[in-house]
Amino acid sequence: MTELSSTETRQAVVLVSGGLDSATTLACARDAGFELNAISFDYGQRHRFELEAAAKVASFFGVRRHITCPIDLRAFGGSALTDEIDVPKDRSDDEMSDGIPITYVPARNTVFLSLALGWAEVIGAADIFIGVNAVDYSGYPDCRPEYVASFQNLANLATKAGVENANHWVIHAPLVSLTKAEIVQLGTKLGVDYSLTHSCYDPDSDGQSCGHCDSCLLRLTGFAEAGLTDPVTYQ
Amino acid sequence: MTELSSTETRQAVVLVSGGLDSATTLACARDAGFELNAISFDYGQRHRFELEAAAKVASFFGVRRHITCPIDLRAFGGSALTDEIDVPKDRSDDEMSDGIPITYVPARNTVFLSLALGWAEVIGAADIFIGVNAVDYSGYPDCRPEYVASFQNLANLATKAGVENANHWVIHAPLVSLTKAEIVQLGTKLGVDYSLTHSCYDPDSDGQSCGHCDSCLLRLTGFAEAGLTDPVTYQ
Repeated sequence: MTELSSTETRQAVVLVSGGLDSATTLACARDAGFELNAISFDYGQRHRFELEAAAKVASFFGVRRHITCPIDLRAFGGSALTDEIDVPKDRSDDEMSDGIPITYVPARNTVFLSLALGWAEVIGAADIFIGVNAVDYSGYPDCRPEYVASFQNLANLATKAGVENANHWVIHAPLVSLTKAEIVQLGTKLGVDYSLTHSCYDPDSDGQSCGHCDSCLLRLTGFAEAGLTDPVTYQ
Repeated sequence: MTELSSTETRQAVVLVSGGLDSATTLACARDAGFELNAISFDYGQRHRFELEAAAKVASFFGVRRHITCPIDLRAFGGSALTDEIDVPKDRSDDEMSDGIPITYVPARNTVFLSLALGWAEVIGAADIFIGVNAVDYSGYPDCRPEYVASFQNLANLATKAGVENANHWVIHAPLVSLTKAEIVQLGTKLGVDYSLTHSCYDPDSDGQSCGHCDSCLLRLTGFAEAGLTDPVTYQ
């Protein structure tokens, strides 16, 4: 276990999927003065180009450590991201905001944050950053501010570090109340190279984005509304 | 996804390690009228005989489903259960109750409960049983009632089922306030075959228990105080 003295830079663990949001979140953590540790998850997702993007993004930010945790959520089934269910395409804003999408993976962020918490405790970090966002993509319950606050409370009850200091853990969700356009603007200001990121749920065999799934549509709208051009190439 | 009608037996997901506590917890869930679904975790533990015991215990209770989730927590390090750190032996009660033991795995129950939650949502269960216990083994922060209550709150914020019904999830910890002797008495009353269970942190290559690690000592004391004989054989 690495014990850090108070004179060392504070360590943050950042959940990095390789998408636009987590890249921006890394930039926020760096901007706040943290030394960065990235954690990614190989959970049987069909859009595996995410993991390559996560490695590129982590490298771009010069993280101190980057680990990828294998988790076989396919045993559960129940989601278009892991099952052989078609990813929905070309949905309107109304359709996207109508209920919880089929791409919802049960308890995904809870599983991811739990693993991040375990690793953070081992490396002596007290700050965890997650790029959840409740505005543009409000269909996921585990992207809401009340969810993040509840996980922070849990973390302080769950761990040795929390027993020693009831306010040890802080779960940061710097994008939670931003629109996708605001996220793109913030990341651009903080120097994110969005060409390294990957958002598509259903890329072709070369990793090129489809431009039609919910994630691509939100991303493209975000860049357009920000008055910027998405550097990723589409099919 | 399996949708259950209200006339079907209610499904419970029970965390099953193969130890004495989780076997008793299965008995409690059965006694409460639930149909049982068992989830075990292969997290790189050195005491792998646990997993064989989990399969035997689940079979004994005639569970509807039993899945084992692989989770590679060894990437984290930081615990005697997963690292090459010696398991402490022959500690006194005072030593065992003095702080958090080296066998603590960071965020373990949080990771396990998160995965159980995801699976429970997929199979249509609303009840999760975990055999944590705050009395005899108070060193683990994630075995306390306030921790269990906090996870229940999180579950109801984290999931689609919780969005639809804010009181959907119930996390049951039927052993949380029992002594080890009371657990053994309860399980015996409910018909648990404790010869199938495995508690030792450091068994020999035949799976025989050491009789000297914290877990063996607590188990042996529990049977003795209950006036019962432990059917497991020791080295």
